[in-house]
Amino acid sequence: MWEAALEPIDEEHCLELLKSVEYGRVAVVTREGRPEIFPVNFAVRGRTVVFTTGSPVVRAWAPLGHVAFEADSVDPATHEGWDVVVTGEGADITDSRDSLALTARSYAIKSWAPGRKDYWISILNPHFSGRHLYTPVPSATYY
Amino acid sequence: MWEAALEPIDEEHCLELLKSVEYGRVAVVTREGRPEIFPVNFAVRGRTVVFTTGSPVVRAWAPLGHVAFEADSVDPATHEGWDVVVTGEGADITDSRDSLALTARSYAIKSWAPGRKDYWISILNPHFSGRHLYTPVPSATYY
Repeated sequence: MWEAALEPIDEEHCLELLKSVEYGRVAVVTREGRPEIFPVNFAVRGRTVVFTTGSPVVRAWAPLGHVAFEADSVDPATHEGWDVVVTGEGADITDSRDSLALTARSYAIKSWAPGRKDYWISILNPHFSGRHLYTPVPSATYY
Repeated sequence: MWEAALEPIDEEHCLELLKSVEYGRVAVVTREGRPEIFPVNFAVRGRTVVFTTGSPVVRAWAPLGHVAFEADSVDPATHEGWDVVVTGEGADITDSRDSLALTARSYAIKSWAPGRKDYWISILNPHFSGRHLYTPVPSATYY
């Protein structure tokens, strides 16, 4: 029986891992300091995480403060995988005309859920943290 | 090409789905109204979601306010699956002696990550929302 292990993931690798999936969860804080979580499809360009949403709650509250975003891929059988959390400031770029916003909105974000996802949110000044979860194998000398 | 569809999930079914997985994400609000997300292993008994954590951030902030918890199972290939969000009041039951806390702490929560997970948090007054995501198939009359 080998103990599970965690290994921190640096920012560059966090970004690579985020590019390997299309689905994550964003947390915003609404009135009265309540957190809400919404599943979203997202894309990454450079250090910028961008997601689309149809939720007026996200559009109302993300740009007013900080957001947290999480994506992961963990095998439920082996318990091995990774998770990445991105925190930063939410920005509603739906109608922005600056070059970052225009570039961001050109991303192909394929929405898995039906309905219009008319709001584009990006995460400014992002901080990345991630961890690998794995079960170490015995070294070759054990055989 | 069939449009994806969403189907709301009632509370009873949300609870069944939550019992089918062991891994979710909890969002808490820290000072300055910032959201943080943490992956956790969890268990459900009755209507109560209980999770263990080693994070002093979660222990510090969850009991002071509302928390949001999310779990899902979505096939990245077909985009079919479900997600459930539970919002409510965080309660630190690590040292509680009432019967609910004693029962909750008797749950077997197997942690996938290493390290001590000494804090037990439950979600009081939970509100459940969930949705099925699926791609409708054409009816038989189309063949």
